[in-house]
Amino acid sequence: MSEVEVDYSLYLVTDRKMLGVRDLGQSIELAIQGGVTLVQLREKSVSTREFLELAQRVKEITAHYQIPLIINDRLDIALAIDADGLHIGQDDLPMLKARELLGKRKIIGVSASTLAEALLAQQQGADYLGVGAVFSTTTKADASEVSLQQLEIIKKSVTIPVVAIGGINDMNLKQVLATGIDGVSVVSAILAKEDILEAAKQLREIMRYWTRLC
Amino acid sequence: MSEVEVDYSLYLVTDRKMLGVRDLGQSIELAIQGGVTLVQLREKSVSTREFLELAQRVKEITAHYQIPLIINDRLDIALAIDADGLHIGQDDLPMLKARELLGKRKIIGVSASTLAEALLAQQQGADYLGVGAVFSTTTKADASEVSLQQLEIIKKSVTIPVVAIGGINDMNLKQVLATGIDGVSVVSAILAKEDILEAAKQLREIMRYWTRLC
Repeated sequence: MSEVEVDYSLYLVTDRKMLGVRDLGQSIELAIQGGVTLVQLREKSVSTREFLELAQRVKEITAHYQIPLIINDRLDIALAIDADGLHIGQDDLPMLKARELLGKRKIIGVSASTLAEALLAQQQGADYLGVGAVFSTTTKADASEVSLQQLEIIKKSVTIPVVAIGGINDMNLKQVLATGIDGVSVVSAILAKEDILEAAKQLREIMRYWTRLC
Repeated sequence: MSEVEVDYSLYLVTDRKMLGVRDLGQSIELAIQGGVTLVQLREKSVSTREFLELAQRVKEITAHYQIPLIINDRLDIALAIDADGLHIGQDDLPMLKARELLGKRKIIGVSASTLAEALLAQQQGADYLGVGAVFSTTTKADASEVSLQQLEIIKKSVTIPVVAIGGINDMNLKQVLATGIDGVSVVSAILAKEDILEAAKQLREIMRYWTRLC
């Protein structure tokens, strides 16, 4: 398991389709200024070279703000830019293989939508779990659904950080936080908003408010 | 540069779309039995897990026949299955980064369609060049065209092995061999044929005949 101290509370996962003509690097920078604590670069359907160049640019930004950068799926890109970690889904490299190739010092997160997947990932040395989709989402049409009750059961059954993902926004964030999870992953709740800085700030605000109450 | 001794003469590049319902592993095995000396696994639009599992199966076959297995584009897959090498195009990882991550003992091939690309790849430590497309091809619609004259100039300008690629078949193989290249890469000339074993044998035969004459 990685020895890096990570704040999983507000975890931005990228999706360039939501940005229209806006620049990904600038959008990530605004999100970080608004309070995002971790960034995952997710790119499908681009060439390896394009992914690499994008990842290099994003790393300059995240490094400047000392925010960890996680690469989705592509261990080659994670290695090539010396990213802080890799996030793998159930269709990506197996956890044990990813650890073998990335080493102990990198963060590895695993997507889990069942308790069995969560327990296996923890046992195999995952650093955190991405659990969802807790609400229906336009980003990943194929994501299995996980109820808030199941999310809470998973959170109580593992010792590694649990990050909820899938359709989380300012309206339902409170319900998700009530399950006791360590953080939330958001895509559209930040990147689809016209004012990215403000969107991240608002989520951060709601989070501070409800975390104080719990 | 890799220290592995490689026979580049008949280099099979895979394309599952050509196989219809036929199994990729079995098709590769027949091609090897027919005389293929090197195999490159090229997969686009599959999940990382699917590519990995396919690569593991293919490696069992190539290892059995002691034929090197090269992975197209995906260094993560090459590392995960400990493949013999990686083939990179101009849209893939840069040569220097690929060597840094793969090490000196692995084969790295680079696609080149100009003399400048060929010379740069050699200077950066490529083990061989894939030069083409020498004839129009249905496999890669976007491939730049390289005339047989340009192919010959490239071959004479570098010291590393040159493999010609793009639309090569039993009808035009003789012309390609006349340029003095070290091998030919074929896709459809083997995999699109009903009798894969026989198709590979015929190419091998033509190659033996013309190589003896030159």
